[in-house]
Amino acid sequence: MRDSSSMLEGRNVCLEALRRGTSIDRLIILEGRPDASLSTVIREAKKRGIRIEFVPRSRLDQISETGKHQGVIAYTASMDFASVEDILKAAGDKSEPPLIVMLDGITDPHNLGAIIRTANVCGAHGVIIKKHQSVGLTATVAKASAGAIMHTPVARVTNLVRTMEDLKKRGLWFVCADASGENMYELSLTGSMCLIIGDEGKGVSKLVRESCDYCGAIPMKGEISSLNASVAAGVFLYEIVRQRMSG
Amino acid sequence: MRDSSSMLEGRNVCLEALRRGTSIDRLIILEGRPDASLSTVIREAKKRGIRIEFVPRSRLDQISETGKHQGVIAYTASMDFASVEDILKAAGDKSEPPLIVMLDGITDPHNLGAIIRTANVCGAHGVIIKKHQSVGLTATVAKASAGAIMHTPVARVTNLVRTMEDLKKRGLWFVCADASGENMYELSLTGSMCLIIGDEGKGVSKLVRESCDYCGAIPMKGEISSLNASVAAGVFLYEIVRQRMSG
Repeated sequence: MRDSSSMLEGRNVCLEALRRGTSIDRLIILEGRPDASLSTVIREAKKRGIRIEFVPRSRLDQISETGKHQGVIAYTASMDFASVEDILKAAGDKSEPPLIVMLDGITDPHNLGAIIRTANVCGAHGVIIKKHQSVGLTATVAKASAGAIMHTPVARVTNLVRTMEDLKKRGLWFVCADASGENMYELSLTGSMCLIIGDEGKGVSKLVRESCDYCGAIPMKGEISSLNASVAAGVFLYEIVRQRMSG
Repeated sequence: MRDSSSMLEGRNVCLEALRRGTSIDRLIILEGRPDASLSTVIREAKKRGIRIEFVPRSRLDQISETGKHQGVIAYTASMDFASVEDILKAAGDKSEPPLIVMLDGITDPHNLGAIIRTANVCGAHGVIIKKHQSVGLTATVAKASAGAIMHTPVARVTNLVRTMEDLKKRGLWFVCADASGENMYELSLTGSMCLIIGDEGKGVSKLVRESCDYCGAIPMKGEISSLNASVAAGVFLYEIVRQRMSG
């Protein structure tokens, strides 16, 4: 599956892509004397024989999708979505029980990027998003992911419930983050686990929630009754990590 | 202490402000037939006798600082910072041991807003930021906080280390989130506690870190070695909440 977007922006993201061997057609870099981190990007690009164009800042600003190019934009050959199999394989390769994040209706690219980043950092094996509602793997997502998009497979599926049924047969347990659920600290969240995070406004959809083995609630004690989706994902994922570590 | 910014944007934030009785000079609302949630804002404003101006979308777009006004902008009399005493009092009023978040160098208004939101949701009593580096309590911060800024006191201090020394005398313990620290799950984080979160790039500054009682690390297992600052704050705060609940 191919995404129409094929730009990466920012120093860390581009450097990650270079070091990981992502297919890069060319790099556009701010002209003038490069500072240390830009020099590293240039050196890595030369090492791999990638074409570099040096352009004025105004040109970078014009091309930039995120508005935060930090002097470097990479045109990649493509940004590929992974398959659900790739995610299971990533877990298998590490001999770990799968830990997957499934997103039901997250449309904000900053949230998607931050969740992919958190998934990577906490050791989850992949992220599954819904095809028709999802945001693509754009430059904004890549930047918000701090380069995690280059490491953590993201799969896009047509029907979340059908994918859940398939994965249940493979031994996965499903828990959704939902305010109506049981206190997450009371749940047993070890083993092969998929965490479902819903849209900030609407939460997890009814059909998806009903297909879950557990509904878990993050305890809330303030006047505001919901967390930012990427914070909620982080808090819940780390409770799973904690239980895995102490298990 | 007064902040130069005095605008609130978006439906939830403005509705929160109206219901909480924040001093609002006037509201600017999208002209035409209001939908249900905008009607609620208008009704609450009328109840409080606040002047409303109905304007075309182009005018709202022009005034907006966040670009996400959702048809409503409120001009507030001012956005006040609280004092550290206010935060301690908030804990005292609830007969709870204080739980405070201190930020060392967070400059992104979205991160600041998201952290204030998380602090509110998890039941922390306030947020302390550094005076000369901090972002103000702008419309962007208010929006990212989902209105939490109206409930959770935010204090601004000149010298973090001096404030830490003062608070230690009042029985507070300090833990900073730092990759070099001990696994946070191994720490005892109950009692009166202040969590320090550093800037994403530079982390917690040396002097502040050395003044802490503990350094705690969020376990990281991926290729990317840091979380978004607001996600890190959420994950760490909730570990404190978990220990408080089970204690």
